[in-house]
Amino acid sequence: MSESQLEQHLFVIMGGTGDLTQRKLLPALYHLSAEGPLAGRSRVLAVARRTDMDDAAYRRWAQEALSAAGLSGDARAATWCSDCLHYQPLGEGAPEDYRALAQRIASLERDRKLPGNRIFNLALPPAAFPPAVTGLGESGLNRGPGWTRIVVEKPFGRDLDSARQLNQLIHRYFEESQTYRIDHYLGKDTVQNLLSFRFSNAIFESLWNRDRIESVQITVAEQMGVETRGAFYDGVGALRDMLQNHLTQLMCVTAMEIPPALEAEFVRDEKVKVLRSIPPLRAAEAVFGQYAPGSVEGRGVPGYREEEGMPPDSRTETFLALRVHINNWRWQGVPFYLRTGKRLAGRSTDIVVNFRCPVLTCFEPFTCDIQCNRLVITLQPDEGFDLHFGVKSPGQPFRLETQRLRFRYDEAFGALPDAYETLLLDIVRGDQTFFVRADEVETAWRVYTPLLQEPPHVHFYPAGTWGPEAADELIEDRSHGGWYVPRSPG
Amino acid sequence: MSESQLEQHLFVIMGGTGDLTQRKLLPALYHLSAEGPLAGRSRVLAVARRTDMDDAAYRRWAQEALSAAGLSGDARAATWCSDCLHYQPLGEGAPEDYRALAQRIASLERDRKLPGNRIFNLALPPAAFPPAVTGLGESGLNRGPGWTRIVVEKPFGRDLDSARQLNQLIHRYFEESQTYRIDHYLGKDTVQNLLSFRFSNAIFESLWNRDRIESVQITVAEQMGVETRGAFYDGVGALRDMLQNHLTQLMCVTAMEIPPALEAEFVRDEKVKVLRSIPPLRAAEAVFGQYAPGSVEGRGVPGYREEEGMPPDSRTETFLALRVHINNWRWQGVPFYLRTGKRLAGRSTDIVVNFRCPVLTCFEPFTCDIQCNRLVITLQPDEGFDLHFGVKSPGQPFRLETQRLRFRYDEAFGALPDAYETLLLDIVRGDQTFFVRADEVETAWRVYTPLLQEPPHVHFYPAGTWGPEAADELIEDRSHGGWYVPRSPG
Repeated sequence: MSESQLEQHLFVIMGGTGDLTQRKLLPALYHLSAEGPLAGRSRVLAVARRTDMDDAAYRRWAQEALSAAGLSGDARAATWCSDCLHYQPLGEGAPEDYRALAQRIASLERDRKLPGNRIFNLALPPAAFPPAVTGLGESGLNRGPGWTRIVVEKPFGRDLDSARQLNQLIHRYFEESQTYRIDHYLGKDTVQNLLSFRFSNAIFESLWNRDRIESVQITVAEQMGVETRGAFYDGVGALRDMLQNHLTQLMCVTAMEIPPALEAEFVRDEKVKVLRSIPPLRAAEAVFGQYAPGSVEGRGVPGYREEEGMPPDSRTETFLALRVHINNWRWQGVPFYLRTGKRLAGRSTDIVVNFRCPVLTCFEPFTCDIQCNRLVITLQPDEGFDLHFGVKSPGQPFRLETQRLRFRYDEAFGALPDAYETLLLDIVRGDQTFFVRADEVETAWRVYTPLLQEPPHVHFYPAGTWGPEAADELIEDRSHGGWYVPRSPG
Repeated sequence: MSESQLEQHLFVIMGGTGDLTQRKLLPALYHLSAEGPLAGRSRVLAVARRTDMDDAAYRRWAQEALSAAGLSGDARAATWCSDCLHYQPLGEGAPEDYRALAQRIASLERDRKLPGNRIFNLALPPAAFPPAVTGLGESGLNRGPGWTRIVVEKPFGRDLDSARQLNQLIHRYFEESQTYRIDHYLGKDTVQNLLSFRFSNAIFESLWNRDRIESVQITVAEQMGVETRGAFYDGVGALRDMLQNHLTQLMCVTAMEIPPALEAEFVRDEKVKVLRSIPPLRAAEAVFGQYAPGSVEGRGVPGYREEEGMPPDSRTETFLALRVHINNWRWQGVPFYLRTGKRLAGRSTDIVVNFRCPVLTCFEPFTCDIQCNRLVITLQPDEGFDLHFGVKSPGQPFRLETQRLRFRYDEAFGALPDAYETLLLDIVRGDQTFFVRADEVETAWRVYTPLLQEPPHVHFYPAGTWGPEAADELIEDRSHGGWYVPRSPG
């Protein structure tokens, strides 16, 4: 949340020919530096194993990547690629390869008159994180003439132990203040706005506690299956892929106390405090599921075990639902229900705040078929807020019904910025507010460790449903009618 | 709010050829009994001085009245007039005229096989209320074979004494349970919904007090001048015409405690308690105004004193603004600002609830150009709710702004029912919830008596503005930016 200026730098992509680079990093860098706030400030050095590639070949590859991202026919893309992109082969990543990288960086900075600020973005598979950190550190690239920052993509560890080891390795060479752990949910404008919403509205802040709130539901629902990620996904599952990072961040931002300032350490301190107040979860508070064959939007789809290359006896969870208790003064007794899954009936990310129910005795004997108040914060699609409230339907007989006070971002503001672009700008600014701190990632793993050690039974659910029925039984209070089902936009 | 059934009855309009009958009563009765819930249940006897009129002549007159109300070309209107309307001349209203009326009623009931339920609607100028009440009472029409109800239109008295006298006269012949004092604002669906809104939404009820609310503003703004009502209006003014009834009712419905049931006595008890908690107003808490020449919607208009037939030195107030304190546990310290006027810059009726301001220190040094939360309840035009809230505008730099959570009746429900129809149905049902009780009207007059005894100075304001500047100085807290100015719909 800093306003400091954007300094000239070299953006080094470790994994420069990978999937993440192609789909996310290059388009975001292009938007920011071809015409955006980084114009004239950012030069990109892609680093990858391939030794048969040079600057020219990489630029052709990058142009195709941009074109695949829908930026073809854009003459600026070609200009940007040839002006700003460079390539350095890393081969097997031996010490001499890293020394060559260091020399290339130094010469680029000299030629292009850069001040020596460097960002190393590890757009790599998790197994490649440790050697990259070591390679950068041992070759002296952890310190440079200007500032040096390292960016680590998710997943950060597979469990508490591996996360701790990775943190220790990073801290051998880099300060925590140099380290940017990405959870791209934190880059979403709607998530950042959740903080603004909570801390700038006196009426909601005064309601935001156990006296007024009955429960909170956070759902990240996908309609997709594992698609081409099968081999990767089967070793991961929903807990590691979605819960430990994205859902946990949404919960923290919803539940945290108000920091004295929107500064990185203050904000992350408050998130750590939320996580520290959650007792480690037990299997009785979790329901795991895996999708069976079914139908999504009228199209028959295979079950998880039938997907290409998948072990036919896989027990990997593609769905999970949890009941989480945050035992602090604000939240004790208010269950937070978290849920995520693939091949569900809809695609949506939302936070549903269920308020305590009104006393309706004064309306007896009239029809009061209303829900209790709820605030629905939709992060996608159709980003906005809906406050469900009771209203009299016009005329006679007297009848109450539920309607919605409604706000939509696109109607007020137009399109929202891309989460990756937001985060890349923050890195250049040196603002860590929306990146995950070492103790935060470890405290989150601590909560979920029992579920990794003794995984719950995996229920099958037909693709295209809202998950296994067992998930419904997690919900303790019935006054809000179980899990929230989003309406179609409109 | 009763669900009891609609019984057959005779609807007697005292003042059957008057302006109110023509504009409001006949169209409402037609809608209700030609095709609505009173079909086959209501027969209308119009009573007026004119002795040169009979049933046939009145039916022709009524058809023209309906046609003027936009119901011409409707064949059902002709049928309804000839089937359901009758006329009885009252002449000078001598005892024998009332005896003739009683005989006519009895013979109509016999011929039409009515069970003897009667409604006497006094659609008369205030001076004609006492003789009509006496005439009905002395001729025995205060009691009938079925139930008998008397309906009194506003204004109910000119001050506390005259209101007391009128109540005493009514109570000489009629029980309070037979008496329906009309304030047509109470028939508006949006006003009735205000009760539903308050009592069915736990989140707003928990905010609805001095801990969370800074001030309340209630405005009834007209763009019209006195039009053809000049002679009547000059003896009345805004206090008697709008404040003592409509604005006071809106304030009571906004401020009252929650009754144990939506039953007439419980609801009216709570309104009386609000009024009893208001210390009688002094001139220091009031600003009176009178419109001077000006321009409304680009058209030059005369000042009040220049209107036809108006005394050139009139001191009648066409505008007033008040600061009212309700000294009970819910509201002490929360000013209620009431305002009404003719020839203002806009036409609107709204209740604006200004919540206390948020603590914005955590957003420093960013741009926080936001208003504090406010709930705007629009009663007309464009009926609905707007909750003003703070939200982050997308992208960088970080910036908070005010947006609106929005609900509009017409989008959810279509057209709202007419207030008069709602109230007439309540009268037939015998439901007094939305009628003003004797002690309520007197307690309201008690609050405003000092302003009648020692009227405040009358400021002139140009027609087409929001009233005299002195009204701005009534507002004590500046955090919500003075009087609310409605946005154009949309």
